[in-house]
Amino acid sequence: MLTLYYAPGTCALASHIALEQAGADYVAQRLDFANQQQRSAEYLRINPKGRVPALVTERGILTETPAILQYVAQRHPQANLAPLDDPFELARMNAFNSYLCATVHVAHAHGRRGYRWSDDKAALATMTAKVPQNMAECFELIEREYFAGPWVLGERYSVSDPYLFTIASWLQGDSVDIARFPKVAAHSERMRADAAVGRVLGAHKAPT
Amino acid sequence: MLTLYYAPGTCALASHIALEQAGADYVAQRLDFANQQQRSAEYLRINPKGRVPALVTERGILTETPAILQYVAQRHPQANLAPLDDPFELARMNAFNSYLCATVHVAHAHGRRGYRWSDDKAALATMTAKVPQNMAECFELIEREYFAGPWVLGERYSVSDPYLFTIASWLQGDSVDIARFPKVAAHSERMRADAAVGRVLGAHKAPT
Repeated sequence: MLTLYYAPGTCALASHIALEQAGADYVAQRLDFANQQQRSAEYLRINPKGRVPALVTERGILTETPAILQYVAQRHPQANLAPLDDPFELARMNAFNSYLCATVHVAHAHGRRGYRWSDDKAALATMTAKVPQNMAECFELIEREYFAGPWVLGERYSVSDPYLFTIASWLQGDSVDIARFPKVAAHSERMRADAAVGRVLGAHKAPT
Repeated sequence: MLTLYYAPGTCALASHIALEQAGADYVAQRLDFANQQQRSAEYLRINPKGRVPALVTERGILTETPAILQYVAQRHPQANLAPLDDPFELARMNAFNSYLCATVHVAHAHGRRGYRWSDDKAALATMTAKVPQNMAECFELIEREYFAGPWVLGERYSVSDPYLFTIASWLQGDSVDIARFPKVAAHSERMRADAAVGRVLGAHKAPT
């Protein structure tokens, strides 16, 4: 049995979808970010970083979306969620996921969480102002260079797909029109049509 | 044959050490960052992100340190650079690498490359000012929670070790005394004593 800690609106959506698509034996435990539950002493014992996702396994606790995604795929090989038989394709998948994690997610985070990198209020406003430009540049690059279609890696579906779907869902809040990236926009629609994605989105939208 | 594109002082050092320790058949191609070679049309055809590392393989080009590190380990299993036989341990390794990539490297980058996230000069100065605090917090967390010792994962050496070594080598330039983190400091010394690490550091220090 696995336990995923998540909060709505966060990147934990990607791991949640992967678990659901894998047919994993898991429970999803929602944290109340509005009340800073991710900073509670109880949760910091689970994830000292005070963030989500965290995945509790029989052997220990895993954090970081790219690591959790590959782990979910490896633990449920029958679900075929990663090119586990091909180190080069697996590296392509992980390169894409790492770009989402270290560049695109970070670009987005400067909108609401710029306090991580500056203590100055005026500086935070200048970071927020640049978010639409940075997010648009990231998605231009994805659209042009890294999205093979119809799925991220091409014909083969992988955990890169829920991860891209998750981060693309932030574009509207970052004042970037997803229609500027037709392949990414069509991909998001394709993802939304998936029953497992629908179940997870429903859980995230449910009142606490 | 593999080709690694790198520049001294960058995170490409980690991939370079991994290739050398793997006994890989590779060449290392240095870019001249002082003359913005990473932004040249020629290099942007190799890596549209305009960054290093990039690893050219027979099947295509890989970017992003965590992806390259796992790929090098998988391509050279005899070198035993990753717990390839244990998905949970592999996920621990990738979680550590992802934290270095998306949090610690990003914290460091706000010192010299804050222009990625703000166009305002005064804001950049406030980001630079916060770098020592953020880097110290990251390494406190690593020292306390994520470094098993004597290697990152414990008794088992992995590609997380050259990656930690690489990013720890930036602490001095970020005005953080590595002696505050005795386990990390001892790890860096242990890495420096390795012949393959010495060869790579020599190449990075060599004049162009």
